Amino acid sequence: MKTFSINSVCGKARAGTLQTAHGAIETPFFMPVATKGSVKYLSNEEVLSAGTDCLISNAFILHLKPGLEVIGKHKGLHNFMHWQKGIFTDSGGFQVLSREFCLRLSEQGVLFRNPFDGKKMLFTPEKAIEIQSRLGSDVAMCLDDVPLAGSDLKRLTDSAERTFAWAKRCIASHKNKKQLLFGISQGGIEKKLRIKSTEQIVSLDFDGIALGGLCIGESKEKMQETIKSAFQKIPFEKPRYLMGVGSAREIIESVSMGIDIFDSCFPTRVARHGLAFAFEKNLNIDSSKFRIDLKPLEKKCNCFVCRDYSRSYLHHLYRTKEENAMKLLSYHNLFFIQGLMKKIRTAIKENSFKKEKFLKEFGK
Amino acid sequence: MKTFSINSVCGKARAGTLQTAHGAIETPFFMPVATKGSVKYLSNEEVLSAGTDCLISNAFILHLKPGLEVIGKHKGLHNFMHWQKGIFTDSGGFQVLSREFCLRLSEQGVLFRNPFDGKKMLFTPEKAIEIQSRLGSDVAMCLDDVPLAGSDLKRLTDSAERTFAWAKRCIASHKNKKQLLFGISQGGIEKKLRIKSTEQIVSLDFDGIALGGLCIGESKEKMQETIKSAFQKIPFEKPRYLMGVGSAREIIESVSMGIDIFDSCFPTRVARHGLAFAFEKNLNIDSSKFRIDLKPLEKKCNCFVCRDYSRSYLHHLYRTKEENAMKLLSYHNLFFIQGLMKKIRTAIKENSFKKEKFLKEFGK
Repeated sequence: MKTFSINSVCGKARAGTLQTAHGAIETPFFMPVATKGSVKYLSNEEVLSAGTDCLISNAFILHLKPGLEVIGKHKGLHNFMHWQKGIFTDSGGFQVLSREFCLRLSEQGVLFRNPFDGKKMLFTPEKAIEIQSRLGSDVAMCLDDVPLAGSDLKRLTDSAERTFAWAKRCIASHKNKKQLLFGISQGGIEKKLRIKSTEQIVSLDFDGIALGGLCIGESKEKMQETIKSAFQKIPFEKPRYLMGVGSAREIIESVSMGIDIFDSCFPTRVARHGLAFAFEKNLNIDSSKFRIDLKPLEKKCNCFVCRDYSRSYLHHLYRTKEENAMKLLSYHNLFFIQGLMKKIRTAIKENSFKKEKFLKEFGK
Repeated sequence: MKTFSINSVCGKARAGTLQTAHGAIETPFFMPVATKGSVKYLSNEEVLSAGTDCLISNAFILHLKPGLEVIGKHKGLHNFMHWQKGIFTDSGGFQVLSREFCLRLSEQGVLFRNPFDGKKMLFTPEKAIEIQSRLGSDVAMCLDDVPLAGSDLKRLTDSAERTFAWAKRCIASHKNKKQLLFGISQGGIEKKLRIKSTEQIVSLDFDGIALGGLCIGESKEKMQETIKSAFQKIPFEKPRYLMGVGSAREIIESVSMGIDIFDSCFPTRVARHGLAFAFEKNLNIDSSKFRIDLKPLEKKCNCFVCRDYSRSYLHHLYRTKEENAMKLLSYHNLFFIQGLMKKIRTAIKENSFKKEKFLKEFGK
């Protein structure tokens, strides 16, 4: 069965449909991050009402806590979270390889220490696939070897090679027919290496291709350039997923290059630090200038926060450290980004998607 | 105009209506605490959908932050908070007299240091009334002299006398015809003193009478006894308000004594510590026994948390310190208490309110 179909093209941008076990998801789409099965400060009902069709959880973290036994008793992650739309699971390569967990990296896998019981455990490509299959996510991601930010060429090269080797093992062990499997390319922003890694991943039979290990502090220009050349290596008919992006500007830029799928904690993380998205200029709600500002966060926004509350009220909640400040700003920012995605999809379908126009409207 | 009418009586319990500038509120009712204009972790939309007809904010705290200028620009607290139902404001006697603020207490008022600008300021009965009038709450509370927990008889006697003197000044300075004004009796759990203070407050022309300075750590039995004797001194036709209560058990006991109004941060505060209200037995969601418990918090509860989530999921969120644990438990507990109030009102109207029956059902 064809799981991805492109229905409209506008320049390099495309609008299509990803078929999953939990329904069709229109692309391009943005996934908020529910690492532990919950988007910070937002109930899953709110994540849905903000316009979300798909979210991403973290298989590695969830297998540690609450554990597969607990989620299995709920017959999978969807029921556990009470979320009946799409779920991607990240394998957790980024987390297991962090200094917090990793003891030793080898061809076989990652030896790590479970922080909850202190035991040493081996995390392998096969294990990552088995966990995701048992979680029952709609899309599983391969285990990749994610280099830390600032790694040298040697480490980047090793990581890309190992990611390729692991990708083959992931495919070989993936038996869950209801679940799609995406491959991930590595190579940092080393253009040649990234292209090679992408070609390697593309050579395998994945349902979609992701670029991983980006958005971890590299320069925006170099990242854009890398993304552009790497994505050209992905066949037109495959869904293209840019992991860890991001801001309205990055999403618009990336859609114009033909990217279909995004995930990021950016909209909700910056909300917790007082940043509210707006068309003219994003607002730092902590600023004294909002003390007596009776306007909504964004007058063109239809979310309940903009309908009901003034900047002044939100400034007051933020300044007095009321948790509702985080919650209301998180909701607004997610609604804002999902509104952008909807507008992008419509524009592509109507053959009127223009990067510059969107950047002018959203990309401040 | 008569602002309070009793429509049904069942034993000493009564069901009635309090008319306010923002509509009629059926009694007995329970107010969640929105000290700074926001109930912790719950948006005002959620506070409403949980069945709340009236909440209580803190005039003293709000006049410090965000200040009357800000709230005045919104034409009052209702618009500032986007809450179009009833609002009580506590004058803030309890806060201004705390060790955090109070520099000197005299007949004139309370000299305190504003923690935001370090300036010394005088808080008087007239000031408390002026602030509440400008906030535009539906019911203002007198400034009372609230003794700290464990005060001796001398301090309790002084506090009751000063509260009486201040009550007269509050009445004299209260000119806002749209706002009701409630008096507060003091006297701790010293029965004679409490009765005398209540008689003094009742002798003045208030729209309602509150018992203050309770629920600060005294024994439940002594408190119940004090409440019983003091409330007998309040004329039948006046609304009776027990400040700082509380739990389902305390509310049921108090309703059976003829009390009409309650406020407390208890349901939401204990939620933040993992306690979920239930009929059989309240749950400590932190407990390992809920790790694989697929039941809702309370199977007879109709709130969205009980509809959508398992104890196991909530246990997981709580254990992994996701803020949504606090939020979902807070919503459930508030919904549970508002459900109790509704059931109490119905039972009184149907002349079937029985304390023992309610205690058996709710009062675990």
